[in-house]
Amino acid sequence: MENIDLSMIKSPADIRQMYEKQLKDLAVAMRKALLEKLSAHGGHVGPNLGMIEAIIALHYVFNTPEDKIVFDVSHQTYPHKMLTGRMQAFTDPAHYDDVTGYTNPQESDYDLFSLGHTSSAVSLASGLAKARDLKGSKENVIAVIGDGSLSGGVAFEGLDYGATLGTNFIVIVNDNDMSIAENHGGIYADLRLLRNTNGTADNNLFRAMGFAYRYVHYGNDIPSLINMFRSIKDINYPVVVHINTMKGMGLPVAEADKEKFHFSAPFDLKTGEPYSSSDTPEGYDDLFANQVLARMKEVPELVIINAGTPGAIGFSPERRKEAGSQFVDVGIAEQQAVAMASGLAKGGARPIVALASTFLQRAYDQFSQDIALNHQPATFVVFYGSIFGINDETHLGFFDLGLLSNIPDLLVLTPTCREEFLAMLRWSEDQRRKPVVIRVPGGAVRSDSKITILDDYSCPSYEIVRKGLRIALIGVGTFLPVMQQAAENLSMKGFDPMVINPREVSTLDTACLDSIKDFDLVITAEDGIIDGGFGQKIASYFGDTAVNVINLGLPKEFLNRYSAIELQRECNLNPDGIADIVMSALK
Amino acid sequence: MENIDLSMIKSPADIRQMYEKQLKDLAVAMRKALLEKLSAHGGHVGPNLGMIEAIIALHYVFNTPEDKIVFDVSHQTYPHKMLTGRMQAFTDPAHYDDVTGYTNPQESDYDLFSLGHTSSAVSLASGLAKARDLKGSKENVIAVIGDGSLSGGVAFEGLDYGATLGTNFIVIVNDNDMSIAENHGGIYADLRLLRNTNGTADNNLFRAMGFAYRYVHYGNDIPSLINMFRSIKDINYPVVVHINTMKGMGLPVAEADKEKFHFSAPFDLKTGEPYSSSDTPEGYDDLFANQVLARMKEVPELVIINAGTPGAIGFSPERRKEAGSQFVDVGIAEQQAVAMASGLAKGGARPIVALASTFLQRAYDQFSQDIALNHQPATFVVFYGSIFGINDETHLGFFDLGLLSNIPDLLVLTPTCREEFLAMLRWSEDQRRKPVVIRVPGGAVRSDSKITILDDYSCPSYEIVRKGLRIALIGVGTFLPVMQQAAENLSMKGFDPMVINPREVSTLDTACLDSIKDFDLVITAEDGIIDGGFGQKIASYFGDTAVNVINLGLPKEFLNRYSAIELQRECNLNPDGIADIVMSALK
Repeated sequence: MENIDLSMIKSPADIRQMYEKQLKDLAVAMRKALLEKLSAHGGHVGPNLGMIEAIIALHYVFNTPEDKIVFDVSHQTYPHKMLTGRMQAFTDPAHYDDVTGYTNPQESDYDLFSLGHTSSAVSLASGLAKARDLKGSKENVIAVIGDGSLSGGVAFEGLDYGATLGTNFIVIVNDNDMSIAENHGGIYADLRLLRNTNGTADNNLFRAMGFAYRYVHYGNDIPSLINMFRSIKDINYPVVVHINTMKGMGLPVAEADKEKFHFSAPFDLKTGEPYSSSDTPEGYDDLFANQVLARMKEVPELVIINAGTPGAIGFSPERRKEAGSQFVDVGIAEQQAVAMASGLAKGGARPIVALASTFLQRAYDQFSQDIALNHQPATFVVFYGSIFGINDETHLGFFDLGLLSNIPDLLVLTPTCREEFLAMLRWSEDQRRKPVVIRVPGGAVRSDSKITILDDYSCPSYEIVRKGLRIALIGVGTFLPVMQQAAENLSMKGFDPMVINPREVSTLDTACLDSIKDFDLVITAEDGIIDGGFGQKIASYFGDTAVNVINLGLPKEFLNRYSAIELQRECNLNPDGIADIVMSALK
Repeated sequence: MENIDLSMIKSPADIRQMYEKQLKDLAVAMRKALLEKLSAHGGHVGPNLGMIEAIIALHYVFNTPEDKIVFDVSHQTYPHKMLTGRMQAFTDPAHYDDVTGYTNPQESDYDLFSLGHTSSAVSLASGLAKARDLKGSKENVIAVIGDGSLSGGVAFEGLDYGATLGTNFIVIVNDNDMSIAENHGGIYADLRLLRNTNGTADNNLFRAMGFAYRYVHYGNDIPSLINMFRSIKDINYPVVVHINTMKGMGLPVAEADKEKFHFSAPFDLKTGEPYSSSDTPEGYDDLFANQVLARMKEVPELVIINAGTPGAIGFSPERRKEAGSQFVDVGIAEQQAVAMASGLAKGGARPIVALASTFLQRAYDQFSQDIALNHQPATFVVFYGSIFGINDETHLGFFDLGLLSNIPDLLVLTPTCREEFLAMLRWSEDQRRKPVVIRVPGGAVRSDSKITILDDYSCPSYEIVRKGLRIALIGVGTFLPVMQQAAENLSMKGFDPMVINPREVSTLDTACLDSIKDFDLVITAEDGIIDGGFGQKIASYFGDTAVNVINLGLPKEFLNRYSAIELQRECNLNPDGIADIVMSALK
């Protein structure tokens, strides 16, 4: 075995100089470096370990960056980054944070798109292929998509169109028989059949969609991959290359528990145990899962729907087992999750769809048409809709509040603490009147024993949590306690602000608002962008009065890897900032 | 042949009393009545004529409404309405308007959902089936979906999940080898293969997705359909029944020109010619198509993308032929249209995606992630985003303005007239700086020779189209001329209002707004719901000033079959209403 000096690899041209037999040693060296970084730094473990060989083979055979590769969701692109000028970010701990976890055109010309949502790579690549054909150039266009991502509807749309291109179009299906958790969907039986027949089964999803088809059984074997890629390089029609890879390959604990090691915080390479304490405090995901699991036992028609991210909503493998047929993972298919919930509600079941903020936007049309227009009483629990959620530009939780609250008939509740979240959830589990969204507060679980719990959240009823004069501070969800603290600060400076918990953001409590229409100043703070959100409704309502309104929230921007604390400071979303705003407004 | 008295059919129970051989005569009578209504009243011609036999057979065999049928997009449900208590609306001209053009639960318990967007029926039905299984009941659950609708990603998501149900789940694929226009997509080769092999081909999309499969070659033959439906009634696993039907059957002109007769205004039954004058005035669709067709000849990389509704954007079969490979219909697949545009722009082409307002919401995630986050300079031309668009509750154009204008980095232009629309389109065809949405004005084409045309629309620059004092009227798109007229009315009453054309709704022109911050009153009017829209941004901007702001627009509601004139009156969106608002605000 040869020791490959990774630092010598500055671009794919450097590996194309290597003998084919050296590439196995290159993979060994890359895997070793990756394991060291992953264990020390955390990241997407399984997807990257499984794709080292395929990515080496792709860059070895194809003439990147002229030949174009689009990696779906792009959480498998650490090996790609290593080979395309960013090796140091994987070998030198001081530079681990130089790169993002996804492809990023600002980092490299080898990265075509910023991607973090699944299933769009085939569509994006189909556009690149069509552009090539219009311009008359000849490069290869390649989409790399995982089996888990295939369940998203846009992937199907992309394949359906891509099959008709009639020119070079290569789709690599990276099949490791896993999504983030296990796969769900009818297509996976066919993928299994294809794997079990070495790709020879008559019943072939990809051929049925109009593609030529190739199969590589040893998808972690570089010579097999190179032979296949050479055979289809410069092909002049659309082809699917189905490669069978091992998620987590080379890390026994990741091979054994693929779900746990899809993504991991820093961990011990030997044991696989995370370095951080396993006594993590109870999160809203746990609160959610425990309450609905208990309720399920009393209500057989209560059913939880999730779209491929069960861990993010508290449904560990153990809890999924406990829920049995009352837990449904539809695969990465948010449109299905939301439309199915409409059918479930219409059929008399009690569906609760739990989704991350950043992904629910994939089902806007279903929220609008299938749920709201049809008045179906489904419950939607939105996680990570907060600046304290995920801080990658591709996974921001800033947009759902305006998106959902402007759909007619959809009640969007914004609990502020553990007690209110659980009360709203309990109420919505049982109500049969309307579609309800419950936006989980951001950050650590917070308890507030003084919060007023209602029997019915269906009508707007803002709660005055602190009486006051002249100034009203309306704090939505996560930002109610911030407003409360700001009020305390202000009270020490001689002000006496009212603090209001609106409880929801989709309807105005005009009685409450009218009761403060002789106030001087109303400040709103919400955990999302200001544009299209709650505060602007308040500003509009008071537009023809003498009440001054100042809206606080986030700018309409795609922020990337921001610090939440810094962001709070910049946007005056902390108690000091709010107090300053009040004092300067009243000067 | 027996003459069937349609008025005796009050519910499917009445046809279940009939001998099977009478059903053919029933179909004859229903087709005759339908043809009379369609020719006199207009409506979805082809889809309904093709499904008379299948709908008779479904209600004959299945025990509706206990057995549940979900009709995808539901524009093929006139025969269903005839058999389920609403015959008079198809036989008595005085009652033609008693029913909507889509299933509607407010009309009948046989209608499960209000549906008008394609591709969601399988998902909705999967929810009904799961609810049934949770409750332990035993009814059949049936989704009816057309071949055109299969190209929508949510249909695939629904099939992928539905195949795993493990219990009764029946999907009728109504294959008439047409979408609204011709089909586009790789799957259609497989459907053709299945039709040509009487359903016996090995390569079978539905089996590959995990379904059992049946085929009915004579999908307009009632005995064949009844035999098949009887054979799968109460089946205990998921099955696709692929039926080969004739779109427009029984109307020779519709059989011959399926695209023209997908939907038609009233027409002469013999000739197929519409009764209304064929000299319809040039619409924005024509203006759009003509300008881009001319430009295409100069710019080979200019490409128009549409998602299954080419006629709605001015691309008749002749114009599509003229555009050649520079026109792409991706099928009913808005996500693909938008994500592909990102790939096209990245690849150096100049994509223009043209979509109806109501359908673009199916691609929100692609607008946000694939286009805006990636800063790709694609152009989106939005038709029917207006109260003067389509007035069915399922097809409203009220929501796109807020939806798109709150996405970072997306420039949303709102032209007010023919000249401005074409100038903005021309500018965006050539610019390579940012993603641009151009919202086509509502109503008839309006000319305004005084409008100021810019060389560059990339930066906010509100145009003061009428100078004035104290009062500013900001009219967005369609409502600029309304504001201008209101200003004239007000000037006769001694006021002198300024009128502003903001040109866009995604960024504030703060210089312009600051120049009027000593005004008393600002009124905004926009062609969409107020919530989350443009006016609320203005209200927020002036929130801490003495300027009073009143936002005019639509309420956050799903209106149905409204009168645009009435709606303008109710919402003070006409010159008199606006003048009244100003006068009472300044009292």
